[in-house]
Amino acid sequence: MAASIGVRKPSIKVAALCGSIRRASYNRGLLRSANQICADSIPGMHIEYVEIDALPFLNTDLELAGTYPTVVEAFRQKILEADSVLFASPEYNYSVTGPLKNAIDWASRPPNVWADKPAAIVSAGGGFGGGRSQYHLRQIGVYLDLHFINKPEVFVNAFNPPGRFDSNGNLVDAEIKENLKELLLSLQAFTLRLQSC
Amino acid sequence: MAASIGVRKPSIKVAALCGSIRRASYNRGLLRSANQICADSIPGMHIEYVEIDALPFLNTDLELAGTYPTVVEAFRQKILEADSVLFASPEYNYSVTGPLKNAIDWASRPPNVWADKPAAIVSAGGGFGGGRSQYHLRQIGVYLDLHFINKPEVFVNAFNPPGRFDSNGNLVDAEIKENLKELLLSLQAFTLRLQSC
Amino acid sequence: MAASIGVRKPSIKVAALCGSIRRASYNRGLLRSANQICADSIPGMHIEYVEIDALPFLNTDLELAGTYPTVVEAFRQKILEADSVLFASPEYNYSVTGPLKNAIDWASRPPNVWADKPAAIVSAGGGFGGGRSQYHLRQIGVYLDLHFINKPEVFVNAFNPPGRFDSNGNLVDAEIKENLKELLLSLQAFTLRLQSC
Amino acid sequence: MAASIGVRKPSIKVAALCGSIRRASYNRGLLRSANQICADSIPGMHIEYVEIDALPFLNTDLELAGTYPTVVEAFRQKILEADSVLFASPEYNYSVTGPLKNAIDWASRPPNVWADKPAAIVSAGGGFGGGRSQYHLRQIGVYLDLHFINKPEVFVNAFNPPGRFDSNGNLVDAEIKENLKELLLSLQAFTLRLQSC
Repeated sequence: MAASIGVRKPSIKVAALCGSIRRASYNRGLLRSANQICADSIPGMHIEYVEIDALPFLNTDLELAGTYPTVVEAFRQKILEADSVLFASPEYNYSVTGPLKNAIDWASRPPNVWADKPAAIVSAGGGFGGGRSQYHLRQIGVYLDLHFINKPEVFVNAFNPPGRFDSNGNLVDAEIKENLKELLLSLQAFTLRLQSC
Repeated sequence: MAASIGVRKPSIKVAALCGSIRRASYNRGLLRSANQICADSIPGMHIEYVEIDALPFLNTDLELAGTYPTVVEAFRQKILEADSVLFASPEYNYSVTGPLKNAIDWASRPPNVWADKPAAIVSAGGGFGGGRSQYHLRQIGVYLDLHFINKPEVFVNAFNPPGRFDSNGNLVDAEIKENLKELLLSLQAFTLRLQSC
Repeated sequence: MAASIGVRKPSIKVAALCGSIRRASYNRGLLRSANQICADSIPGMHIEYVEIDALPFLNTDLELAGTYPTVVEAFRQKILEADSVLFASPEYNYSVTGPLKNAIDWASRPPNVWADKPAAIVSAGGGFGGGRSQYHLRQIGVYLDLHFINKPEVFVNAFNPPGRFDSNGNLVDAEIKENLKELLLSLQAFTLRLQSC
Repeated sequence: MAASIGVRKPSIKVAALCGSIRRASYNRGLLRSANQICADSIPGMHIEYVEIDALPFLNTDLELAGTYPTVVEAFRQKILEADSVLFASPEYNYSVTGPLKNAIDWASRPPNVWADKPAAIVSAGGGFGGGRSQYHLRQIGVYLDLHFINKPEVFVNAFNPPGRFDSNGNLVDAEIKENLKELLLSLQAFTLRLQSC
């Protein structure tokens, strides 16, 4: 009995960041849905949403005596404590958004708190469903030393009928929810695989 | 006589943006140097530095009744009035910086004020001299409808000896200045070529 | 009167290359359709299909005394004589195909016969309709010194219903044909614009 | 005693592919050096060079009754048997070479024999030392389901003095050899880490 308690794995904590900061963002809706899916049907993994909109623009002049502004330190701490990372990365002009890149860059300042974490990306948008931003983010991840899962990739075409989201940006499409769940299970499996040594 | 005055081409106005907002930025130093080179030795082209650090994070919730925040409108107006664009694009984590991407995205909101402008990129940094950011920026430019010159490309390795910059971020290397001048002449020629119809 | 005949612009010659070498390729079907559209409704532009499947793998050991193998010389000559270039670039494993890259590389050997030509890309495939290959090809074009049009971009989802192609790979979709025509008109306009100086 | 034999890990087999097929290729020289480094000083890992220049251009018309041409089957078998993959990927026109892309595509045909293998990239060239090809290859790897190590990255500037290679393309630079060894150790560690479940 005692032994089985001893080996019980703690739940995986996933830091979730959204590149859009508007209220009714579809991409944020994907993260709310991911959070619900974990709570409902993926034991051993939970999602913690991390805000990025209060961060100042990255400017190394703000780094004084090796410390970062308070809001930056708090943000960095949340990334540091996470076991893995989930990005909702909308595509703005064929790349990642400014606020997301800014947050990524702050957390990469020494010591880089992204290092060696497993990660996954979802995106919603027109056309390719945000796909072009995902490949830029993967290249960024090489320097961050993130380990992105390869499959499945989730791109949600948010504008073609049928409507995937309601007017508050909540995901209402059962098939996309299933895709999200598969992605979360893949991230969980990859996280456990990389933790095992 | 009068006629020849009438057809005199007005000087090309180049909007210059820097992705780094720290004071002693080497990339900003490249733009100061470019500005001086134009003033000294390139008749018919002048550079106007455009600040990006006072812009809010892009958030379409800030767009009210089809208008943008005042600081955004002022920024957009400067891009609109330019004949072409010069980016100094440092590489942060293998891509463009957050503040630069944020500025780019604001000016792409309808109507997209980047449309159909010739453009060029310079960058300074370690390793590839900022090169990875340049290719991300070129992909972003497809959607913006910018026409980037192909040659020359200018990547400045800022950290290897000999020192290219002084402690205030001023470019002090004659060879790099010559490269910058060639890039500016190429941008001028491409701008005139695209204007001719 | 006679003079106006004298200044008549010759027709623009577009070299068309397809990255797939299988018989019933949808991407080759796009080029056949583009050829027909030019013949039917775009005066002043015609398309010449250039084969790439007989080229050997690029190997500089095959360059003897500054000459290329006969089949390579013939290929390079066709690119050299073209005013602009149209690529049908299927996406294989998220990038361009091997045979297309091989052909591109042969024509880039000194002197680079792609230099300063306007260009456009079309693609057909699953998912993004070949889109990922287009952005790799655009980066390749920077070194080749190609001037790609930005808009419109044509990505054809070949597998989702309704069927866009018949069993021989011929395009049968009126809307896609219209998109192709707009792309060809844009390539024509950009070619004339760049030629005007 | 018997038990300790039973748990001895078999040596990791690394399939090594070179994107250049010319005789004195510097990139092939990197693979020869990697092979020697493994033999001399990395117990538990050995490198097997896989030729790619006899493969035909990928053409699905060559796939008959679910089988591939003999030379393709032999190539695919070598990839299948490898525990991980080492690419020497020269940069041709800012991307991977045609012969390498062609080989990659053949091995991705169903069943994809690259799936779930750890991988690493080295490159030699001018400028960025082949760097641009490495990021295209990483994007290709997403679809192949390769798990690339993030660090260290090895880019060898082959043309700037001091000479890194002799006239036969053999690596003669002690520092680069050390970099190569660190990359191989990182690939070994990541391979073992991913195998452990």
